[in-house]
Amino acid sequence: MRKTKILKNPPAFISYASAAGYEEHRGPLGCKFDFHDETDLFGSDSWEKAEGELAHTVLSLALKKGGISEQDVEVLFAGDLQNQCVASSSGLYNFGIPYLGLYGACSTCTEALLLSSLYLETSEGDTIAAAVTSSHYCAAERQFRTPLEYGGQRTPTAQWTATAAGAFLLGRKESGVRITEIMPGKMIDSGICDASNMGAAMAPAAADSVFALFSDEKHDISSFDRIVTGDLGDTGSFFLHELLSKDGIDIRDKHEDCGLLLYDRNAQDVHSGASGCGCSASVLAAHYLPMLEKRELKKILFMSTGALMSPSSVQQRIPIFGICPAVVIESD
Amino acid sequence: MRKTKILKNPPAFISYASAAGYEEHRGPLGCKFDFHDETDLFGSDSWEKAEGELAHTVLSLALKKGGISEQDVEVLFAGDLQNQCVASSSGLYNFGIPYLGLYGACSTCTEALLLSSLYLETSEGDTIAAAVTSSHYCAAERQFRTPLEYGGQRTPTAQWTATAAGAFLLGRKESGVRITEIMPGKMIDSGICDASNMGAAMAPAAADSVFALFSDEKHDISSFDRIVTGDLGDTGSFFLHELLSKDGIDIRDKHEDCGLLLYDRNAQDVHSGASGCGCSASVLAAHYLPMLEKRELKKILFMSTGALMSPSSVQQRIPIFGICPAVVIESD
Repeated sequence: MRKTKILKNPPAFISYASAAGYEEHRGPLGCKFDFHDETDLFGSDSWEKAEGELAHTVLSLALKKGGISEQDVEVLFAGDLQNQCVASSSGLYNFGIPYLGLYGACSTCTEALLLSSLYLETSEGDTIAAAVTSSHYCAAERQFRTPLEYGGQRTPTAQWTATAAGAFLLGRKESGVRITEIMPGKMIDSGICDASNMGAAMAPAAADSVFALFSDEKHDISSFDRIVTGDLGDTGSFFLHELLSKDGIDIRDKHEDCGLLLYDRNAQDVHSGASGCGCSASVLAAHYLPMLEKRELKKILFMSTGALMSPSSVQQRIPIFGICPAVVIESD
Repeated sequence: MRKTKILKNPPAFISYASAAGYEEHRGPLGCKFDFHDETDLFGSDSWEKAEGELAHTVLSLALKKGGISEQDVEVLFAGDLQNQCVASSSGLYNFGIPYLGLYGACSTCTEALLLSSLYLETSEGDTIAAAVTSSHYCAAERQFRTPLEYGGQRTPTAQWTATAAGAFLLGRKESGVRITEIMPGKMIDSGICDASNMGAAMAPAAADSVFALFSDEKHDISSFDRIVTGDLGDTGSFFLHELLSKDGIDIRDKHEDCGLLLYDRNAQDVHSGASGCGCSASVLAAHYLPMLEKRELKKILFMSTGALMSPSSVQQRIPIFGICPAVVIESD
């Protein structure tokens, strides 16, 4: 059975930032983002380049907020949803920070935090690692589904890829908010081949990670103030609760899903909720970390969910594999 | 200046395997691969699925050769060139090993070895980490350039994406071949926007990594038996030597490029040489590691080269960013 790795030198969040687009700024967390752009273009002339600018903006902000120079950052873990993760490479190359590119679909934020923590676990002194993830609604729609101009009808289970990004600088700090445990995700085949039903495709992987965590006697649901999933949305959250109930686990009192926090589903036409690499990243940076810093929360389980698929794999009827890495975040 | 991280608990190669397609088996290293398939289909009905099978085959072989069960592998780092890295996810999911997906273009093999080493640096006892990378000529051509049926003319600087894969199991071992130092790569913009000239796009990143390594007084060119790059090919290797000569560094006596070893360029129409995630992975597993095990080589610098781009980024004239992470591999 999978277990979390307890970090001997749990790294602290030295700085972090969030940035978002129009629809995200209109949502319930709108006023919490460090930056937003009403045009969703972030000064660029294409949606793909806009996402690169978004990633660039959010890391610039995190560096600025922390008073940290890019030369002081030893390594950068980043990823996004664009083919070959070009938003991360084109947006972040000119910081000149040694780079390790990741692809974990919408779980990439937690994957990047996990690997940054691992890097710092083997580093001494004042090493700083950066973790950046982004997504862009318009870039994702034309890559994964259809260009927006096509006006395709969306199904009720479909989710809205967030135009959003989060950047995190991790390192040593006397006191603060830390990542104390990490656990990679396991790919789970839920048999779903429908690219408009990501929630159902990811829920079994989230359930598997929750189950692995709480099968380990060192964890107790009551010790977490929140159990936060990335972007299961309404459909996926329902299935997560159903799947866990079969094992007698009830997390409903503690569970929140970033995909259900980002938009007001009554006022915004986002169907099952938000998704995208930038969803959990921006919600962590804008919503949860400030609460942990203010000690309104003491300890959360943070688990971005990812659906591993491509348009080709869906066309070829290869199942969509869910994955859900986890990190434990605590304030001390 | 970037430096290598010296590992305190350098992990050993416990087992490894290579697999390849028809053209690779016809090449000079052909007889060294653990497995090959003349049809390039590996029992599948599409090129994309074939690459998944190739990745599955190579990890199965590495497990079998090492007498290791997949349950004994704690984590799997993997990546490929397909959009959203679906060859790795679809090919490797049913091993059930906790998975961290990577995207470093053709540098992914070294990135996976680097992160596996980092994972083991923080682990105790008999932990095993796996690193798997693959590429497939036919899947890559239709994704990045044109389907083969189109019969597009290739330029002299173009490279041939290897249908090949390598799998590595790393862990603790009394004596053997080890990864002793690791260094992430830095993205370098060489101003190249031509997707048929990857060698020129990657050479500055390789030069930057070589320069960083040998600026550090703990390294001396003479202490390496080989300096191995991933897939610079003929064009890229020429530029690497030119760029280094400006800094007074001459590695020509020690330098070998996996992209120039995989095929016989006189007999096989591969233009500037081989490329792809599977190129350096298969050449390391089939060629260099056996030489290190037999102590025909004592110490090599292994640096897979990657070109960070997508068809969209090329169409939008975003430059191709080169990257070149490095690991030092020694036999003891």
